[in-house]
Amino acid sequence: MPTKREIAAFEAGIKLGALYHQFVGSPVSIKTAGSLERAMQESISLQPYVRKVVVSLNRHMLNENVFGYCELEGRMMNAEVEIDYEGELVRAKLEYDAAKNYPLMSLL
Amino acid sequence: MPTKREIAAFEAGIKLGALYHQFVGSPVSIKTAGSLERAMQESISLQPYVRKVVVSLNRHMLNENVFGYCELEGRMMNAEVEIDYEGELVRAKLEYDAAKNYPLMSLL
Amino acid sequence: MPTKREIAAFEAGIKLGALYHQFVGSPVSIKTAGSLERAMQESISLQPYVRKVVVSLNRHMLNENVFGYCELEGRMMNAEVEIDYEGELVRAKLEYDAAKNYPLMSLL
Amino acid sequence: MPTKREIAAFEAGIKLGALYHQFVGSPVSIKTAGSLERAMQESISLQPYVRKVVVSLNRHMLNENVFGYCELEGRMMNAEVEIDYEGELVRAKLEYDAAKNYPLMSLL
Repeated sequence: MPTKREIAAFEAGIKLGALYHQFVGSPVSIKTAGSLERAMQESISLQPYVRKVVVSLNRHMLNENVFGYCELEGRMMNAEVEIDYEGELVRAKLEYDAAKNYPLMSLL
Repeated sequence: MPTKREIAAFEAGIKLGALYHQFVGSPVSIKTAGSLERAMQESISLQPYVRKVVVSLNRHMLNENVFGYCELEGRMMNAEVEIDYEGELVRAKLEYDAAKNYPLMSLL
Repeated sequence: MPTKREIAAFEAGIKLGALYHQFVGSPVSIKTAGSLERAMQESISLQPYVRKVVVSLNRHMLNENVFGYCELEGRMMNAEVEIDYEGELVRAKLEYDAAKNYPLMSLL
Repeated sequence: MPTKREIAAFEAGIKLGALYHQFVGSPVSIKTAGSLERAMQESISLQPYVRKVVVSLNRHMLNENVFGYCELEGRMMNAEVEIDYEGELVRAKLEYDAAKNYPLMSLL
């Protein structure tokens, strides 16, 4: 039987995996980053056991292509989720790891 | 050689196909529909030759699951795009066709 | 500090969240379900710490629309993932819960 | 009133936009590129008026991250669709344009 804390960690993973793969590839620019961040936050906040979601897109990475925008990539996303599973609180984050060149998800 | 008008129609199709398949599956509720609509609009507006995008989610279809939200389905989306390809204007829409039970995309 | 088992549970959640939100909305039919299952399995198998992924789409739910296909919904997906995080093994599944009418993810 | 050819061009655009935004972000490697290509082809082939879809992922661009895989990006995808709308045949492609550094979609 998993512990409550393991279940909370599992739920945190679901939210970050969902956030990432639902929105990766979305056209985005510095002008529209704010509305995409807000939609991402509010969307994932609806999922079960979520207490908080904060999403922040790295404006420095939003380089413009020839048509003046780019597409959301994993390395551009910073996110933190807080899960409350039956009183057990767990936090996790998604953050670009420059050394590994990988958008890393981890429990806090 | 395609005509400018055919190219404009092609571009309109790209935008509706992108809008649909980028955001379908996003968690959404009546409370968050507004932020998702706005992000969808602003995101697709960035793509080439777009003059206007309007997205409206059908609140009547946003039925709550056991956790109080639902996921975006094609039949919930109404959208209209206006393309300007070298002066050739084309409009197209995505709208649920109840008779066909299908989220239909069409040129206007 | 999270335990290895909590991290393994977190990783399992990531995989199911990713699987779900990457592929939900894909056009699918009984004829093409096999290739989609295989791509889903092989794709998610690449992610860190995955030991096994099995995906099975419920053919009984693949009802044809007016054009002879449907789109992948959460309730159609059955999946099981096995994570090995530094020797700690965790299994989790995604399965439609008919009583809740919800595609439920859970640790095994 | 749009011509049949404009509608066929519109339908071609829908397919490429759908293909791109449904599958962008999928974990992929040289070993799994074949199953993803096949699923992409078969999935989009189901959509209305499609006569043929060919998808080819550029193996040279599938660089491995620290965990031995990458995620599907637009520039890695080559695709060609053939639409038959009431006898009007239209072909379109998605191909990385190196000069523009952009995954360009165009009518053939």
